[in-house]
Amino acid sequence: MERPIDVLTGAKGKRVLIQLKRGTEISGILHAMDLHLNMWLEDAEQIEEDKKTKLGTILVRGDNILFVSPEKTE
Amino acid sequence: MERPIDVLTGAKGKRVLIQLKRGTEISGILHAMDLHLNMWLEDAEQIEEDKKTKLGTILVRGDNILFVSPEKTE
Amino acid sequence: MERPIDVLTGAKGKRVLIQLKRGTEISGILHAMDLHLNMWLEDAEQIEEDKKTKLGTILVRGDNILFVSPEKTE
Amino acid sequence: MERPIDVLTGAKGKRVLIQLKRGTEISGILHAMDLHLNMWLEDAEQIEEDKKTKLGTILVRGDNILFVSPEKTE
Amino acid sequence: MERPIDVLTGAKGKRVLIQLKRGTEISGILHAMDLHLNMWLEDAEQIEEDKKTKLGTILVRGDNILFVSPEKTE
Amino acid sequence: MERPIDVLTGAKGKRVLIQLKRGTEISGILHAMDLHLNMWLEDAEQIEEDKKTKLGTILVRGDNILFVSPEKTE
Amino acid sequence: MERPIDVLTGAKGKRVLIQLKRGTEISGILHAMDLHLNMWLEDAEQIEEDKKTKLGTILVRGDNILFVSPEKTE
Repeated sequence: MERPIDVLTGAKGKRVLIQLKRGTEISGILHAMDLHLNMWLEDAEQIEEDKKTKLGTILVRGDNILFVSPEKTE
Repeated sequence: MERPIDVLTGAKGKRVLIQLKRGTEISGILHAMDLHLNMWLEDAEQIEEDKKTKLGTILVRGDNILFVSPEKTE
Repeated sequence: MERPIDVLTGAKGKRVLIQLKRGTEISGILHAMDLHLNMWLEDAEQIEEDKKTKLGTILVRGDNILFVSPEKTE
Repeated sequence: MERPIDVLTGAKGKRVLIQLKRGTEISGILHAMDLHLNMWLEDAEQIEEDKKTKLGTILVRGDNILFVSPEKTE
Repeated sequence: MERPIDVLTGAKGKRVLIQLKRGTEISGILHAMDLHLNMWLEDAEQIEEDKKTKLGTILVRGDNILFVSPEKTE
Repeated sequence: MERPIDVLTGAKGKRVLIQLKRGTEISGILHAMDLHLNMWLEDAEQIEEDKKTKLGTILVRGDNILFVSPEKTE
Repeated sequence: MERPIDVLTGAKGKRVLIQLKRGTEISGILHAMDLHLNMWLEDAEQIEEDKKTKLGTILVRGDNILFVSPEKTE
């Protein structure tokens, strides 16, 4: 049976967009994640309105997350 | 014995409406969910008053949810 | 030994009133519930002061609940 | 060894007063409780300053509780 | 190995002072406690600035507590 | 493998400084602690801006803590 | 399979930057961490806008953390 987290399996090595509970967003290349939605991102940046801040490699604690979205590719 | 989550079993592949604790709503095609109410949605959009924002594929962290409603079909 | 949740056993198929932590109320026909107070309601409606909003079938996440009350019947 | 919850063992069938984290109080006849302090009350009423509201039979979710007090009897 | 909770072992039958997260204090004779810091107090009173309110026998839910202090005896 | 909590092993019997989430600080001689960061302190005092309040022996509930620091010794 | 926490394995003995949920930042040499993101830091300092405060050796409770970032090295 498929689990919600499986949506991110195909997203490894690709950019994901994280919407945080606090309103700001983080974007980064997904390297690893777990069931709590803790996420290891490479080349991450924080997006606040029009301002982007480079964060580099980060580990996001899953309990801050509202939703995650793999970047659209077509 | 039936569990509350079973209400969503028949909703797979159909549109569900999520009421978030923070007041806004998310609508999307349910692909997978678990007991924490983590949900994988396709073709999702965020609804804030009159404004709809396309989100595409998303994984919603269950602890943000107030209630979920399968779309009425008749 | 009786558990608090057993108060709802006899309430299946009947209307219950949920008082949410956030102050608003939800009323609906109880179809299934679990120990976290997650609840599957049919024919639900949200009650905010004098305004009632039809919600249809919903799954309420238990951690939003202050208390639940089976409707009085006599 | 005695547990804190045992203070309520002798309170079954008697009125208890619940002080909620949110400041209001709930009073009711204790029918069943568990280790999370979930409580099944009969003939309950909510007390907010000078206003009492009849609630009838309710199940209070334990995480809303600041403290519980069996009614004094002598 | 000694555990933090052991500080309260010698405090049974004696008065303890609870500092609540919400700022007010509760004082009472400790009768029983557990690892979550749930506490059964006798002869309790709530202390808010200069105002003391008699509470009698109470069960305090541990998650409301900032710290607990056995009364000084010398 | 070393665990974060091990930083406090050598701090037993020495003064530690606790930064609380709520902004104030508590200082005390560490007697015992556990993995939740519950801490038994002796000779504790609360530090709020320039005001120090003697607390004596206390048990701090770990979930209130932002960080703990053993006092510098050299 | 790689876990998100593994991003910090190579960061031991190096400086990491912690973004706290409350908005301020803590920087320090990572000595040990666990799955809750509890972290033992050496030579730590708190960064609030333009103000840096020396903290020395600290143990940060993981639930305060928004994200952690190993310092860029090239």
